[in-house]
Amino acid sequence: MNPVELIIKKREKNKLDKSEIHFFVTEYLNENISEYQMSAMLMAILLNGMDFDETFWLTAEYLASGKQAIFKNKNGKFIDKHSTGGVGDKISIILAPIAAECGISVPMISGRGLGHTGGTLDKLESIPDLQIDISLKKFQEIVLKNRFAIISQSKEIVPADKRIYALRDVTGTIKSISLITASILSKKIASGIEGLVVDLKVGKGAFIPEMKTAKKLAESLISVGNKFGKKVKVLFTNMDSPLGMCVGNSLEIIESIEFLKGNFQEDLKEVTFALLSEMLIMAGIVITKIEAENMIMKTIKSGAALKRFAKFIELQNGNQDVIYDYSIFGKSKYSKNIIAEKSGFISTINSREIGWALIDINAGRRIITNKIDYTAGLKLFKKVGDKIAKNEVLAELFFNKDNGEIVAERIKKTFQISNEIVEKKTRILECY
Amino acid sequence: MNPVELIIKKREKNKLDKSEIHFFVTEYLNENISEYQMSAMLMAILLNGMDFDETFWLTAEYLASGKQAIFKNKNGKFIDKHSTGGVGDKISIILAPIAAECGISVPMISGRGLGHTGGTLDKLESIPDLQIDISLKKFQEIVLKNRFAIISQSKEIVPADKRIYALRDVTGTIKSISLITASILSKKIASGIEGLVVDLKVGKGAFIPEMKTAKKLAESLISVGNKFGKKVKVLFTNMDSPLGMCVGNSLEIIESIEFLKGNFQEDLKEVTFALLSEMLIMAGIVITKIEAENMIMKTIKSGAALKRFAKFIELQNGNQDVIYDYSIFGKSKYSKNIIAEKSGFISTINSREIGWALIDINAGRRIITNKIDYTAGLKLFKKVGDKIAKNEVLAELFFNKDNGEIVAERIKKTFQISNEIVEKKTRILECY
Repeated sequence: MNPVELIIKKREKNKLDKSEIHFFVTEYLNENISEYQMSAMLMAILLNGMDFDETFWLTAEYLASGKQAIFKNKNGKFIDKHSTGGVGDKISIILAPIAAECGISVPMISGRGLGHTGGTLDKLESIPDLQIDISLKKFQEIVLKNRFAIISQSKEIVPADKRIYALRDVTGTIKSISLITASILSKKIASGIEGLVVDLKVGKGAFIPEMKTAKKLAESLISVGNKFGKKVKVLFTNMDSPLGMCVGNSLEIIESIEFLKGNFQEDLKEVTFALLSEMLIMAGIVITKIEAENMIMKTIKSGAALKRFAKFIELQNGNQDVIYDYSIFGKSKYSKNIIAEKSGFISTINSREIGWALIDINAGRRIITNKIDYTAGLKLFKKVGDKIAKNEVLAELFFNKDNGEIVAERIKKTFQISNEIVEKKTRILECY
Repeated sequence: MNPVELIIKKREKNKLDKSEIHFFVTEYLNENISEYQMSAMLMAILLNGMDFDETFWLTAEYLASGKQAIFKNKNGKFIDKHSTGGVGDKISIILAPIAAECGISVPMISGRGLGHTGGTLDKLESIPDLQIDISLKKFQEIVLKNRFAIISQSKEIVPADKRIYALRDVTGTIKSISLITASILSKKIASGIEGLVVDLKVGKGAFIPEMKTAKKLAESLISVGNKFGKKVKVLFTNMDSPLGMCVGNSLEIIESIEFLKGNFQEDLKEVTFALLSEMLIMAGIVITKIEAENMIMKTIKSGAALKRFAKFIELQNGNQDVIYDYSIFGKSKYSKNIIAEKSGFISTINSREIGWALIDINAGRRIITNKIDYTAGLKLFKKVGDKIAKNEVLAELFFNKDNGEIVAERIKKTFQISNEIVEKKTRILECY
């Protein structure tokens, strides 16, 4: 087979067959197909699409490129959650210990910050000494011991995705339904799951702003996932404004711990509970959402979920004292209140803009080699729909860099205040 | 500027502006934009297209990347011919000395074999000691001395095209109207021309089989060329079957010399004379095609064109004795007659298939490092429309490799013989 002929085949909108996809992926990993040939192929795939079969074959090739976690005697209760990424989205960190406490095993392979959004792994690394670079063997041991672990994608796990994802990131080829499907599902399947609940973010702060594309991705994830014998459920959730109260790494961990202590932000609770309910129903642990919510609430009220989170920190070598002593995270040198210039009702908080602004104070990375300032971030005291008086504090910015004042000004502009009442909307848009 | 943002801009079908095209090309040449980013951009350009402005800016960037030949006191008579490539197309070699003899200066930067087609430079190199790697300075001297020179694209001439063309070749991104336009025009303009006549091959043996795409390319070449102040004329010519009698490097040089001695194959004469006529009219040397044809015929009959060709060989250090002693080219060890299996009329000779088959006996290259066997090739004794008797010789294959018999069988299959009379058709399809 000739790589150029295969690129031309896809360029001319033809369907690649199983052996051609196998050839292209394996020869790329064997370094017989170059980066520039792969990037041309990726752009052709993005623009001309892949059908169901092609996407399934690609996912299978990704999967075959590495090892898979093997859990014996699975009971239908190995279920993971995946989020397509949003600003202030710390749900994985809260959801995993609760799900585990309810009897679900959550073998979670997570990611770092991407574009304007933070990453679960970066947030977790704000906990002193916590390890996320863990071997597949050790990962399986921890999951069996504590029912959940959150680790990074090592070289063992879907190396094809690891290499191709890095290439997509620098060649403008992220936004392809088929490539996203293969990337998400291969990693999730490799982690040993039986079912997956996807939090598909839609709106201004999401990677997929429009519902039409989101639905196509959902259909692709469900159909390809099912073909692998996995249950897949998709929740479409709104990502116009940041989720919860905090944005920034250690701030989000603190908010997560507070959540597990029973102190909820309403929107964060809504989405977290909805995702957990789907997981519990999928696992056959409960039948109704009411049952699910009661069970979730019990794990929080009893302190059991928090205890399981502490155990997770311990098993991944972190300092679990952070749970009762937030001073261990350290504090930013400076903080700055962001003040409302007029009274009214908050109509918009542009989460994409907030994400990019926070990168300017190192709460996230611009390029992969940037070092993160874990204490930098934003606390939102007001949410969309809240009433606000002139000079009231909207938010507080925490920073160490000397550009904090400029960033605070930029963040102030992300709040829009209306004279008319603004209705508070549900975050859950639809369910597939 | 961020390369990824520019790739995404083109991926989303937006227009790149002049500064963005400048940035992308120059930073690629400075090695700040990688091969894989360029190949993703090239695929996005191929699939989403570039408009007139973008194509003009790209051509200008290509041009600005290298040096240009400068001829003082040009008189409207610096005109070149470009062919998009076909099997048996040795027209440049015949046309340049005739045009020069008629008063036209032809500064020709030519190419090597590509895909199933041969290259003018490879053919010329079958002449012992002939040099085609010549500096721009020396090139200009030869053109001023003998009114024509045929050289290769050195590092001085449009390095952007040289690098990007090599990348396009291995990433399935050749077939883009805008990229082809920039590649052709930048080299031609850099060679110092005032006008260009394009032989745009259409049909089974051409890179552009269908007329619709050919016309788009013609319009692009004409409009962008005009914007640079260059006259551009396009002839669409049929490339279903090989042009002339011979295919293969030294065989085609011998056919060219024979042509200059007055021994023509009808189809080769038709296209060569048509292109030359356009050049003569463009240069203002004649008004009508009849005048042009008379003038061309005179340069041949008098032996003046042949003499100018001999001078060209001498100026480029080749052995000009080949003109009267074809034994200097050497001979293949083997030859094999290809025999008609039935009588009738030849309806098809598939030139693409012949091109690929001849590569198997090293008459061309499969990859850039392959060495060419200059004596290998095919002599066609019959053309489309010719009457043929059973067991009559259709063609003769010349080869040194041990697979000659297999290749001869393959070539036999490229001839289709019909029971009904087949009309001989003109090669000239249309003129823009």
